[in-house]
Amino acid sequence: MSMLKSPGQHLYLEDLHVGQRFTSAPHALDADQIVRFAAEFDPQPFHLSDEGAAGSIFGTLAASGWHTAALTMRLLVESVPLVDGLVGVELQLGWPKPTRPGMALQVFSEILEITPSRTKPDMAIVTMHSETRDQEGETVQRLTVKMPVFKRPND
Amino acid sequence: MSMLKSPGQHLYLEDLHVGQRFTSAPHALDADQIVRFAAEFDPQPFHLSDEGAAGSIFGTLAASGWHTAALTMRLLVESVPLVDGLVGVELQLGWPKPTRPGMALQVFSEILEITPSRTKPDMAIVTMHSETRDQEGETVQRLTVKMPVFKRPND
Repeated sequence: MSMLKSPGQHLYLEDLHVGQRFTSAPHALDADQIVRFAAEFDPQPFHLSDEGAAGSIFGTLAASGWHTAALTMRLLVESVPLVDGLVGVELQLGWPKPTRPGMALQVFSEILEITPSRTKPDMAIVTMHSETRDQEGETVQRLTVKMPVFKRPND
Repeated sequence: MSMLKSPGQHLYLEDLHVGQRFTSAPHALDADQIVRFAAEFDPQPFHLSDEGAAGSIFGTLAASGWHTAALTMRLLVESVPLVDGLVGVELQLGWPKPTRPGMALQVFSEILEITPSRTKPDMAIVTMHSETRDQEGETVQRLTVKMPVFKRPND
C-alpha cells in the first residue's frame, strides 16, 4: 500500500499521544480566492464583493466559513502525517472571527483524546482540536474532529 | 439595502417558526467535481482517483466531506431564503456515508429552535438541522447550525 501514500505520511496509531501537536505552514489568502470559492459554493453578497458586504454584518468582503474550513483541511493534510489519511466522522466547528483578504492562515492542532475501539482491536478514535489563526495569532476557526486511526499492520 | 439581496431572499425572523421546513433542488455530482475540489483542498489519494481509494476505507473514489459541506451550503443558499443571509456561528457536522460520483444530492432543512437574544432585541439565534441525502434518500451529511437572524426593520 505504500504507493498510495504521500511522501512524509508516516504516523500510525502507535505514534500518536495525547497532547501531541502539529503546526502547518501559512497560507496567504486573497480576495480572488475568496470570491472564486464563494461564487461556486456560497454565493452570498458579503462573500462576493466589498459592495455586497456593505450593510451586512461583515461590513467588507469576508470569506465563506466553508472556505476557511476547506483551506484548513488542505493545511491539515500537509501538517498531520497520518499514514491512512485524515477522515473525519463527526466534528464541531466554530468561526469566532471573519476570515478576510490579506490574512495568512496557519493551523495549530493538538490531540485531545485517543479512545480504543471496543470492536476493532487495530483501531482507535482520535479526537483532535485544530485552531486556524491569522498572522496576528487571532483565531478564525475552531475545529474538533473525531477520526479513526489504525495501528501499524503486522507483516 | 434591497440591492444587496438575491431575488427571492425575503424571510425575516418574524417569518420563521420551529418545525418550518425547506427543501433544495438536487445537485448532480460527478467524478470531475470531486477530483477538482480535492486537488485544491483535500488532496488525499482516496479523494483523487479510484486507484488511490483502493486499499483505503473508501474502496473507490469518494468526495471530501468538505466538498459535501460546500455543496450543501450552495443548496442552502438557494433553498433557505433569509433576507440577511445564512451566517453560521457554530455547528456540528457528521458524514454517516461517503459521497460518491453519480449521486444527486438534495438538502432537507428544518428549524429546530429559535432563541431570542438576551442583549439584542431585534435578533434571535436560530438552530437549523439540515440533512444532505442522495437520490436513494440515504443521508450523507447531517448539519446542525446556529445562526443569527434579524427582525424586519421598522421604517
